[in-house]
Amino acid sequence: MKLKIAWIGKTKDPAIQSLTDKYVKRIGRYVPVEAIAVKDEAGLTRLNAGKPCTLVVLDSRGKQFSSEELAKFLGDYRDRNPLPLVLAIGPADGFSDATRKSSSFQISLGRMTLPHELARIVLLEQIYRAFTILAGHPYHTGH
Amino acid sequence: MKLKIAWIGKTKDPAIQSLTDKYVKRIGRYVPVEAIAVKDEAGLTRLNAGKPCTLVVLDSRGKQFSSEELAKFLGDYRDRNPLPLVLAIGPADGFSDATRKSSSFQISLGRMTLPHELARIVLLEQIYRAFTILAGHPYHTGH
Repeated sequence: MKLKIAWIGKTKDPAIQSLTDKYVKRIGRYVPVEAIAVKDEAGLTRLNAGKPCTLVVLDSRGKQFSSEELAKFLGDYRDRNPLPLVLAIGPADGFSDATRKSSSFQISLGRMTLPHELARIVLLEQIYRAFTILAGHPYHTGH
Repeated sequence: MKLKIAWIGKTKDPAIQSLTDKYVKRIGRYVPVEAIAVKDEAGLTRLNAGKPCTLVVLDSRGKQFSSEELAKFLGDYRDRNPLPLVLAIGPADGFSDATRKSSSFQISLGRMTLPHELARIVLLEQIYRAFTILAGHPYHTGH
């Protein structure tokens, strides 16, 4: 399984950058992962152009997973689908309809509206947590 | 309205500390706020002992608010209740039944299990967002 995690916009806050780096590094213990900051939605489209992949986007109208359900989703994907999985976090005002429609699946982090940079940290932590659940690592049940 | 935000345990990650400080400072623009790290649940009990206040705890079985609903909850409290409001984030494995039962209300941040330090950042951001919503500040609708 090859995982790409893409977000829109440069990170200005060093604390957000530090947490991003921490969780991307941890995810990398379990799966080949590439973290990519693109300038805008067009950049995301270009990133995937001509490369077969599965696009999953964060969207407030998407499915709200528990941590265990996200683990099952990623585990099933890993076991059944050879295409790279691209998980994308939108700009501050969310993705356009076009990008949403081009995605295979939409994930919601909950009913709250989060700043997109904080949504990224939460998603990265949940992906890391998902892989620890799949691996039977005790992180999820209390470090 | 006087707001106290309490959490269990010292913050080791400077990125978490930086984001904590950022949002506590921002909340302070709207309401007198005190941020308190206590050692354990007993410390939380001592903090509130003999001081009339309303305790609200983060709990996975609590009510899941949208950002607008949290704003309404805090706005209604501010307008109707003179007691200090204590919002508490539990330890890694959540609050004990005793603390949960002593609370007036339980808030859930969603179906995902978050590390308690990240849950704190999300809650602080949502409290800040709630006060911007109440004040009609454009932060919530796109900075």
